[in-house]
Amino acid sequence: MLRTHNLGELNLENINENVTLSGWVQKSRDLGGMTFIDLRDRYGITQLVFNLETNSDLCLQARKLGREFVIQVSGRVIERSSKNKNIFTGEIEIEVNKLIILNPSKTPPFTIETNSDGGDELKMKYRYLDIRREPIKENLILRHKVSACTREYLNQEGFIEVETPYLIKSTPEGARDFIVPSRMNSQQFYALPQSPQTFKQLLMVAGMDKYYQIVKCFRDEDLRSDRQPEFTQIDCEMSFIEQEDILNTFEGLTRHILKKIKDVNIDKFPRMTYDTAMELYGSDKPDIRFEMKFVDLTNDCKGNDFIVFDKAEFIVGINVKEGSKFSRKEIDKLVDYVKSPQVGSSGLIYCKFNDDGTSKSSVDKFFDEKSRKKWAEQALCEKGDLLLIMSGEKEKTRKAMSALRLHMAELLNLRNPEEFAPLWVIDFPLLEWNEEANRYNAMHHPFTSPKKEDITKLENDPAAVRANAYDLVLNGNEIGGGSIRIHDKKLQKLMLKHLGFTDEQAQNQFGFLTEAFEYGAPPHGGVAFGFDRLCAILGGSESIRDFIAFPKNNSGRDIMIDSPSSIDRAQLDELNIKLK
Amino acid sequence: MLRTHNLGELNLENINENVTLSGWVQKSRDLGGMTFIDLRDRYGITQLVFNLETNSDLCLQARKLGREFVIQVSGRVIERSSKNKNIFTGEIEIEVNKLIILNPSKTPPFTIETNSDGGDELKMKYRYLDIRREPIKENLILRHKVSACTREYLNQEGFIEVETPYLIKSTPEGARDFIVPSRMNSQQFYALPQSPQTFKQLLMVAGMDKYYQIVKCFRDEDLRSDRQPEFTQIDCEMSFIEQEDILNTFEGLTRHILKKIKDVNIDKFPRMTYDTAMELYGSDKPDIRFEMKFVDLTNDCKGNDFIVFDKAEFIVGINVKEGSKFSRKEIDKLVDYVKSPQVGSSGLIYCKFNDDGTSKSSVDKFFDEKSRKKWAEQALCEKGDLLLIMSGEKEKTRKAMSALRLHMAELLNLRNPEEFAPLWVIDFPLLEWNEEANRYNAMHHPFTSPKKEDITKLENDPAAVRANAYDLVLNGNEIGGGSIRIHDKKLQKLMLKHLGFTDEQAQNQFGFLTEAFEYGAPPHGGVAFGFDRLCAILGGSESIRDFIAFPKNNSGRDIMIDSPSSIDRAQLDELNIKLK
Repeated sequence: MLRTHNLGELNLENINENVTLSGWVQKSRDLGGMTFIDLRDRYGITQLVFNLETNSDLCLQARKLGREFVIQVSGRVIERSSKNKNIFTGEIEIEVNKLIILNPSKTPPFTIETNSDGGDELKMKYRYLDIRREPIKENLILRHKVSACTREYLNQEGFIEVETPYLIKSTPEGARDFIVPSRMNSQQFYALPQSPQTFKQLLMVAGMDKYYQIVKCFRDEDLRSDRQPEFTQIDCEMSFIEQEDILNTFEGLTRHILKKIKDVNIDKFPRMTYDTAMELYGSDKPDIRFEMKFVDLTNDCKGNDFIVFDKAEFIVGINVKEGSKFSRKEIDKLVDYVKSPQVGSSGLIYCKFNDDGTSKSSVDKFFDEKSRKKWAEQALCEKGDLLLIMSGEKEKTRKAMSALRLHMAELLNLRNPEEFAPLWVIDFPLLEWNEEANRYNAMHHPFTSPKKEDITKLENDPAAVRANAYDLVLNGNEIGGGSIRIHDKKLQKLMLKHLGFTDEQAQNQFGFLTEAFEYGAPPHGGVAFGFDRLCAILGGSESIRDFIAFPKNNSGRDIMIDSPSSIDRAQLDELNIKLK
Repeated sequence: MLRTHNLGELNLENINENVTLSGWVQKSRDLGGMTFIDLRDRYGITQLVFNLETNSDLCLQARKLGREFVIQVSGRVIERSSKNKNIFTGEIEIEVNKLIILNPSKTPPFTIETNSDGGDELKMKYRYLDIRREPIKENLILRHKVSACTREYLNQEGFIEVETPYLIKSTPEGARDFIVPSRMNSQQFYALPQSPQTFKQLLMVAGMDKYYQIVKCFRDEDLRSDRQPEFTQIDCEMSFIEQEDILNTFEGLTRHILKKIKDVNIDKFPRMTYDTAMELYGSDKPDIRFEMKFVDLTNDCKGNDFIVFDKAEFIVGINVKEGSKFSRKEIDKLVDYVKSPQVGSSGLIYCKFNDDGTSKSSVDKFFDEKSRKKWAEQALCEKGDLLLIMSGEKEKTRKAMSALRLHMAELLNLRNPEEFAPLWVIDFPLLEWNEEANRYNAMHHPFTSPKKEDITKLENDPAAVRANAYDLVLNGNEIGGGSIRIHDKKLQKLMLKHLGFTDEQAQNQFGFLTEAFEYGAPPHGGVAFGFDRLCAILGGSESIRDFIAFPKNNSGRDIMIDSPSSIDRAQLDELNIKLK
């Protein structure tokens, strides 16, 4: 080893020991006859001291070291005169007697500090320098810990990690596949998996009983700011279980992670049906760290000659506690917000309930004090509260109000990243209407089982059929989702028919799965967690990119290695493909 | 849960308990008025009993159950009259009072038994049934355990598991890349990684200090019987280390795995230079579970007018202990073996040392008793031994003799799969001559550092330059290999020049790496283990395929899902490529 200790482990107990250390020069300060250098590695920072009087050669050498030089030093651990109690090594320093430059460094394009000066593009290009920064480094270590304690729990519970293949078959499971031309099988293609869904189900047919895998998945989608073409899933499946068993097992996993990673103890996770979530929060992934539930005002608002309300399918309010202090200007901004393209609403009605007991709304022309009192009763508004009301087509209005609710929480600082509020959302609809294709899609995926009591509705009222499907929501983000699968060949065929697959298409794409179901498939179900998202939330961030070692940008490019890139003609020739 | 217990956990302690069990019908026997069913799951087998007299309906129902039906039963645990002490559940059976068929099964195309009747192709097609068989199931569980205890050790040692990207850049690292067309970056391609080599080095530049990953890698090679286009590596890298540290750390890992998985204790692993391994075994991955070392007879065999020897560059023998009992016919078979295309030798000389002190060789015409005595002295042959001699061009002869040595060990049962003999082979040559390209290739890879004292030979005697490269060999298989990397930009450039890269090619392919080295790269090195192979050896097998859940066949096809397959024209259009 080029060191006897790392840079985060020496303290007063090591006084007078002779040590050898290696690391990066974080910063250097000349104070009178002394030069101090902060030497950094993954584990911490240790202060080096060089004395111009007692060892001028060495000190002069040290003064020439630039930021990010890699050096090795030997010396004696001594007590510091000015101590830094904030770091573990802050009470000691190293009186250096030997210095070796292991590798010089050009000046990095941005500072290696917690708050750095580089822009996003620059940091992506020099990702290996960005990772040296404390926050990114800590994110990657957090990710490692989350995966380690995920495995710890699942191994303990008798799950077997099985690797499923990456070179599989293209099946339109929802998003576009990345495809891989085969050289040995000319004009044929593999696809990269969007998830190991079919393989984990086959592992259940194979009797593996409890499977998991922390695994990369691939989707060739147009990237939104927080999507990656390759992402990681905690993928799980169990046999001989019912929905209740899955919920308990993975609630256990999540509890274990929250305890181990954040030292947060959460008892039983609350559960909510999809219908209730939509009704109370206008979202299937409500953030329940704060209240501000929807109040249906449809009946209370009609018939006062306010045409906007009168013609609205749906009128909904939220009570912003202590919101009456919002100024006119601030409320105008809220109106601007709901009218912005990302929310797309046509307007916002407000009603302030003042401290003196009076109220004031933007529609006082139509609604008198008495009407406004009625609103207050409905929405449990008290003195000092602010009622925000939106109206229109039901689904759209709910969505807009959900956005506004989160926006208000943001403004009022109600979304504490160090608070963790998990929630099971259950009883999802089986199908969702696809406008474009003019048919139903599987809301979860084609292998999700309908609730037994709803199967008869498949023919005449498909939208009302509920699925044995569930999502785990954490702080308003879907971190996991799953379902009890269909294990019966006949039911699977019926489902595929309802999803618009012809027999031939179904056979082509899922034939191996439906055939497998004929050889004694056990009842089974599972769940998959979005691992990148989970890590981000645990790290107190909304963005997954900083929790991925080498992420891609919004065009799917890795700027650091400059990929994708063009390819030799010869390579394409071998694959029997050509560019258009 | 559809069960109260699994099928491997009930025993006499549970007598009289009412239990519910689920699983597959392994087999069914009608004995007089009783029907016995072996019910199977991942955990074991539990016997069910149905009594025709006391519950005839149920018993008649049970008699109709076919093999591999999935059933759920409830009943009482009772003591068996005829006990099976070989299995944990063998002293009890379940007196069934309720039976539900969860899923019927067609008759499987091969029996779900340890020794099954299905051919390889059939088993690949119905892999999900093959996995139900005890040996394959146990292989997958073994694999899970090996990965779990690999992580256990590396986490303990302070390694961080970091996921590196799968969509990277095509670089000719040796084998062919699989490529992935990018839709968003038209006419450009990603490549799937042959290994995370450059990324793990960048993680060292990034200061991650100790990295590992159990990760899929991809090579588009023509497949030999025991290669897979996608395979798994335990990939590791460390900073601020020397070769000795790497050897110790990963010797520790291997020791931990052998202890945990096989309960085998191995002290210090022996080490051998590449040169010695070639000299004594004709192989850089010698199986040292048995002796039969090479004896150089070049000097002892020349000058006796036997023209084959006289004109040979190299003459080598192995002493087959107690081999004189081989009959003439058996020795003829050995001659056939060395002449077979896979060995490709022109012949084999033998000399038997008989129990009576006499000797007899196939070249007695040229070599008298005295000459043969001299051979015996050289090769330490005693009464009853058999000396086998081959001659010719040195490298070819070594290779052929190495094959013969393993063949003899096979015949004599000297390769006990339950014995584990690890060996470090060190001091590999840096370069190897590439006949076809008429230039040197990196023997390990272009980032491997030469030994300091040999760098000056790079210009004039490149073949003599040794590398800081090492392989870990287990039972004659390379299970791991690695090197100390070049961390100096100048040396890396020099190496790339010697490997025939133009500046432009080097910049194009490795520019991001050499640039990264300018920002304070620490000294670093690492190792990668072939995880599939490691699992196979631990499982006592030479074939990796049975240790992979869903392997591909020799044409790179997954027979079960029928992949690769043709693809929609529309999908190709979107990617701006077409078939040739």
